[in-house]
Amino acid sequence: MPSKQLRKPSAALTRILAHNIVRLRRSKGLSQEELADVCGLHRTYVGSVERGERNVTLSTLEVFAGALGVSVTDLLTKGTDDSRRSR
Amino acid sequence: MPSKQLRKPSAALTRILAHNIVRLRRSKGLSQEELADVCGLHRTYVGSVERGERNVTLSTLEVFAGALGVSVTDLLTKGTDDSRRSR
Repeated sequence: MPSKQLRKPSAALTRILAHNIVRLRRSKGLSQEELADVCGLHRTYVGSVERGERNVTLSTLEVFAGALGVSVTDLLTKGTDDSRRSR
Repeated sequence: MPSKQLRKPSAALTRILAHNIVRLRRSKGLSQEELADVCGLHRTYVGSVERGERNVTLSTLEVFAGALGVSVTDLLTKGTDDSRRSR
């Protein structure tokens, strides 16, 4: 039986999320600390999400999406960042 | 400053997730208990997600998506279930 408590998201999904957050943050000229401030999160937490280390919740995804001007599904979709790079 | 610990996902997003899980589960002829078994989750937890009460994590979204044969972004997209109802 799978363990509920130790379950982790797939590396594929956390990498997509991490990549999108990094690229969207940079496209807005924000540092990790500035993004963290906008989101009401700690800088080290943002860093760990950007390293794909976190099993983030829906509410945190919504906060990132709002701060970065995209939808939650955009954050979880590969290549979203590239299509918005010119914004 | 927003509180990190008490943050909740929007009702709009949890409703979309809940609606998609219920409809996809039913389209597969599964009870909450059967879906819970497939997912390695507790039946009451599945029930609370289907009532839009949970701030689910990425890993839980992946488990539901895998059990229901869709992607994580499908689960978070309004009306996804309808387009798949005839499958």
